[in-house]
Amino acid sequence: MKNYATLKDVAELAGTTAATVSYVLNEKKGRYISEETKRKVLEAAKELDYVKCNGASSLKGKERKLIGILIPQFENQFFTRIIISSEDVFVKHGYDLVICNTLDKPERERAILNRLIQQRVDGIILTPTKEGTQNTELMRRVGMKMVVVDRPLVGLKDFFWVATNNYGCGYVGAHYLMAKGHRKIGYIGWDSKIPDLEARREAVLEVARANGAEVFVEEGEFSAAEGCRLTAKLLEQHPDMTAVFYGFNIQALGGIKCLTERNISIPEDLSVMIIGSPEWVMAGKNDFTHIDMNDLELGRKAANLLLDQIQSDDEIPFQHIIQDCTLVEGSSVCDIRK
Amino acid sequence: MKNYATLKDVAELAGTTAATVSYVLNEKKGRYISEETKRKVLEAAKELDYVKCNGASSLKGKERKLIGILIPQFENQFFTRIIISSEDVFVKHGYDLVICNTLDKPERERAILNRLIQQRVDGIILTPTKEGTQNTELMRRVGMKMVVVDRPLVGLKDFFWVATNNYGCGYVGAHYLMAKGHRKIGYIGWDSKIPDLEARREAVLEVARANGAEVFVEEGEFSAAEGCRLTAKLLEQHPDMTAVFYGFNIQALGGIKCLTERNISIPEDLSVMIIGSPEWVMAGKNDFTHIDMNDLELGRKAANLLLDQIQSDDEIPFQHIIQDCTLVEGSSVCDIRK
Repeated sequence: MKNYATLKDVAELAGTTAATVSYVLNEKKGRYISEETKRKVLEAAKELDYVKCNGASSLKGKERKLIGILIPQFENQFFTRIIISSEDVFVKHGYDLVICNTLDKPERERAILNRLIQQRVDGIILTPTKEGTQNTELMRRVGMKMVVVDRPLVGLKDFFWVATNNYGCGYVGAHYLMAKGHRKIGYIGWDSKIPDLEARREAVLEVARANGAEVFVEEGEFSAAEGCRLTAKLLEQHPDMTAVFYGFNIQALGGIKCLTERNISIPEDLSVMIIGSPEWVMAGKNDFTHIDMNDLELGRKAANLLLDQIQSDDEIPFQHIIQDCTLVEGSSVCDIRK
Repeated sequence: MKNYATLKDVAELAGTTAATVSYVLNEKKGRYISEETKRKVLEAAKELDYVKCNGASSLKGKERKLIGILIPQFENQFFTRIIISSEDVFVKHGYDLVICNTLDKPERERAILNRLIQQRVDGIILTPTKEGTQNTELMRRVGMKMVVVDRPLVGLKDFFWVATNNYGCGYVGAHYLMAKGHRKIGYIGWDSKIPDLEARREAVLEVARANGAEVFVEEGEFSAAEGCRLTAKLLEQHPDMTAVFYGFNIQALGGIKCLTERNISIPEDLSVMIIGSPEWVMAGKNDFTHIDMNDLELGRKAANLLLDQIQSDDEIPFQHIIQDCTLVEGSSVCDIRK
């Protein structure tokens, strides 16, 4: 690869010093430079395709107009929608977005945050991994503006947070199943070790308990294949189950595949409830009853909250914005009271 | 926001000069610095949470281990899969990925490329907008390593390109419809002005011509709503049409919605063929016959081709890798010869 031209290269071609080139190209004041020298420097820079390397100038506290966003799962439309809607807000305000995929791995999260701090981004939107609290420690110390989306920084209170009411997601879905007469329900979830996400399962269990219903819980990793495996397991162990509640959309995708392969008709043979609204739940012949978390609105709220911090002269108080979810009635839950 | 500590701040606290701090923190050789001073500098840097601002050091041609990727549509799983699979390759080789969304807007593409050049990334993966050729001019001049994915740099031959055989996508799909007896086909596409993408439509037209079939073409913008609108238009103007061929998956999503709302049964009333394999085409009750472009493999090939360039000591010759597509037979196309 051809190397980038340096200040020195430009200076050599222009017959002057690197310091002079720097003065001219950065339009610094305070030192006389002849028009002739200026012209030579500008021509040499053009001739050599000189591109300034960024970084150094940011030391002076200039706004970079750059926001970093860290998202853990790109195969999950919940997160790509948060990117799309927050980017829309940032772009309208003249900010550019650096999008990063942590793959839900704490060590990647740490490395990416470190890179973004070095890059002096103006702020960060983050869905933390399970070690997010430790990984954001330096950021919080140096006062990097930050909004946490979806999952919280476990153990902390003082941070900006925009999230879904996860307890509400489980609550609303379980209530609907109760109202339709279901009393033997399978629940399939992700053993994420993220307390806020576990609220989905807790809500289902509490609603069931209050209604004298049974819940068969199966939890495992966050993948379609696991959703399929856990569904098969539930079908085998609980043939009397009348409904399956999928707490996570990626597992649901695999779970529904498992049901289809076994020629189990939805909702005639088994009712299905899903948390999340990936395209497929309502596309084509699909019409699943699901809990919409209003993903796009989460991204917009997070972006606006970050911009508030960046653009305000005063320090604004920490806020937790917990957004409610909506049940979207499809045709995947049978009323078995009839 | 608390400002980041500068070299000067560290120097002040350590009771020495900024130059000395820089020597110590960058572990430069060639100048004697006492152990006592070193210790003071390191302690002061730690005390002040000094984080080096990157950029300056890259001027010296060091590898940044950073790759930029520019993708035009985040709502399109075709592209998020390219991100996922290429990132997987990069991460395994110790490279980190900066993901950028051009929103298919040439001026955004230009600004992002400029930022990435300033950031001195080691290479770039790019799906160009319609002005990609002009926008990559500087990159090509300074010798930035680059692999173009999906759409080409129109008018150029000398670049690294990994793409789908778009003509093949149209050809394979149209042939299948012919084999099932369809002779009046609607084709819905994106008026992208990107010649390579228009090959899909051209192939459908040519196959139809060779078989004495009629094709009714409707093209418009890249959105689900447009797919719905164009489908309604075709249904109205060509009630004798027996199949619809969707050239682009996002339009297909809206088109299928339009069919469902009108209670048109697929494939009994109308056959459907789709180019692309978003989750929804095979999820739940959906089982659409579609053309799989093997999105993940495109991303892997692009990443490997970029790494070859970065890691090779010699210049490697430009390559165009055109990947074939696969027809996945579902149940959305009726055999009307029977």
